[in-house]
Amino acid sequence: MKHLTVALAAAGLLSAAVAAPKPAAKKTRTAQEILAASPAGDWRGLDPENTLLMDLSSGQVIIELAPRFAPAHAANIRALARGGYWDGLAILRVQDNFVTQWGDPDGEDTAKARPLPAGASAKLPAEFSVPLDVVGKSARFTRLPDREGWAPRTGFAQGFPVAADPKTGKAWLAHCYGMVGAGRGDAVDSSNGAELYAVIGQAPRGLDLNITVVGRVLKGMELLSALPRGTAAMGFYDKPEQRTAIQRVRLLAEVPAAERPALQVLKTESATWTQLLDARRHRSGWFVHSPGYIDICSASVPTRPTPQAPR
Amino acid sequence: MKHLTVALAAAGLLSAAVAAPKPAAKKTRTAQEILAASPAGDWRGLDPENTLLMDLSSGQVIIELAPRFAPAHAANIRALARGGYWDGLAILRVQDNFVTQWGDPDGEDTAKARPLPAGASAKLPAEFSVPLDVVGKSARFTRLPDREGWAPRTGFAQGFPVAADPKTGKAWLAHCYGMVGAGRGDAVDSSNGAELYAVIGQAPRGLDLNITVVGRVLKGMELLSALPRGTAAMGFYDKPEQRTAIQRVRLLAEVPAAERPALQVLKTESATWTQLLDARRHRSGWFVHSPGYIDICSASVPTRPTPQAPR
Repeated sequence: MKHLTVALAAAGLLSAAVAAPKPAAKKTRTAQEILAASPAGDWRGLDPENTLLMDLSSGQVIIELAPRFAPAHAANIRALARGGYWDGLAILRVQDNFVTQWGDPDGEDTAKARPLPAGASAKLPAEFSVPLDVVGKSARFTRLPDREGWAPRTGFAQGFPVAADPKTGKAWLAHCYGMVGAGRGDAVDSSNGAELYAVIGQAPRGLDLNITVVGRVLKGMELLSALPRGTAAMGFYDKPEQRTAIQRVRLLAEVPAAERPALQVLKTESATWTQLLDARRHRSGWFVHSPGYIDICSASVPTRPTPQAPR
Repeated sequence: MKHLTVALAAAGLLSAAVAAPKPAAKKTRTAQEILAASPAGDWRGLDPENTLLMDLSSGQVIIELAPRFAPAHAANIRALARGGYWDGLAILRVQDNFVTQWGDPDGEDTAKARPLPAGASAKLPAEFSVPLDVVGKSARFTRLPDREGWAPRTGFAQGFPVAADPKTGKAWLAHCYGMVGAGRGDAVDSSNGAELYAVIGQAPRGLDLNITVVGRVLKGMELLSALPRGTAAMGFYDKPEQRTAIQRVRLLAEVPAAERPALQVLKTESATWTQLLDARRHRSGWFVHSPGYIDICSASVPTRPTPQAPR
């Protein structure tokens, strides 16, 4: 019985790390071939002021913030990270096909809750959307021709999946796999970025425009998605010992150069990204049916180890 | 810092087990309220000839087959289960945001591969779609009014998410979270159901019409989705000891009555299911924006423990 290797290689995430070679039946380039041929200028480094390194005992999760979409939350998260707010806190909740959430286990007990560090605010405005013109040429927005049901307009801007509605004049980050949001209570302005979640299942697009999305996981998703699901209501852990400890969360700007991850991110305004999306839209080889379609949650923006300069 | 309990309760899977109470701000009933009020006739039991029980050391995964959509594969899987084919085999591959796959680790080595039991075929026809009229009144197809980009027509039939195209006259099972398919190689007729996968991430709808979908996980998804990701190409495990052993897989019909799970499944042709989808489409309470939209992969069909008869 042959393993379905070819099948699922071709269908996997667009990632230089996981894609495997696939025979090109119709001269269509594979994702791996497109990535291998990508010019250096199609890649960018990590932004020190907008990258978080979250260290777990299992490894490091790298998160990119989206200050264009959530400027107040991004600024607060920077202050929280600089103040070491999450160091020693924990992953509190993992709900299957939904979210992994982390923060202060004692957050709801005012006597025991960890105080916010200097410069961090307890209260922020809701940042559920931005005016449509924020996602324009200046954000290097690339629109998808494919139509979907959740929003009249979709595309990518600065590495993030974006939805927009010209009628309301709003644009917003879409809740795709790996996106990171700021938990809130009943009040729309009750999030401040101290309690965060990452999407670990089918895109819960119904959350769009209801909560502030602050960024996405660039690397290390599997450290959040493969955790044991919590068995209490909504996937919270029953017992403190079931939680995963957060060793520390640092803003990349505060990390010594030698400890910074050598990682690059593909620019979503690049020709390479357009080609990758097209390769995913139009399938060949193993595929006998080509969907001719993708949606913004069908593909994650690739990362790669920073190429070493020739010596 | 309040946990985002209300937020994410309302957004969670439609499941009697995980949904939590949510204050109804606008007299909209919550999923939990709808389920609590559902008449007994809206639920059905497990079909002994189309239910698999897969025992792992971590618990039991219950899989429902879809014989209307993949009759030859369903029949072969029954024969494989009756013959104890998977007993002692393993989960071989877990690729993040994609699939968990199980079968014979030695499947590609003809000398070591486990022989198929009596009555099981090595080769089956591809069952990527069925004629559209198979999904009609007789299948109790309920069509969604919501439009999506992957297929011109979508809905649910007998508990499964279904897509269809009147132009081609085809209907097929959609690759939503928790759906189970039969791995294949390059030849379209190279699957026989011995190597199976379950979707553990964003719906890979690009696989639709390219591979035979055989059913879905009714219960125990978290036992497949929370496994460590494999680090070899495409999420295969590097080393045999990283695999998860399958203790046994039984067809429910072969299981003694006392060992059968007391589980019911909501009928997708029921008013309760329609109400649940509508509650998910039109949000209130914690939600300040209601999407007015869902797609077939937005919601999983609920299960519940079989109610005990009053003594």
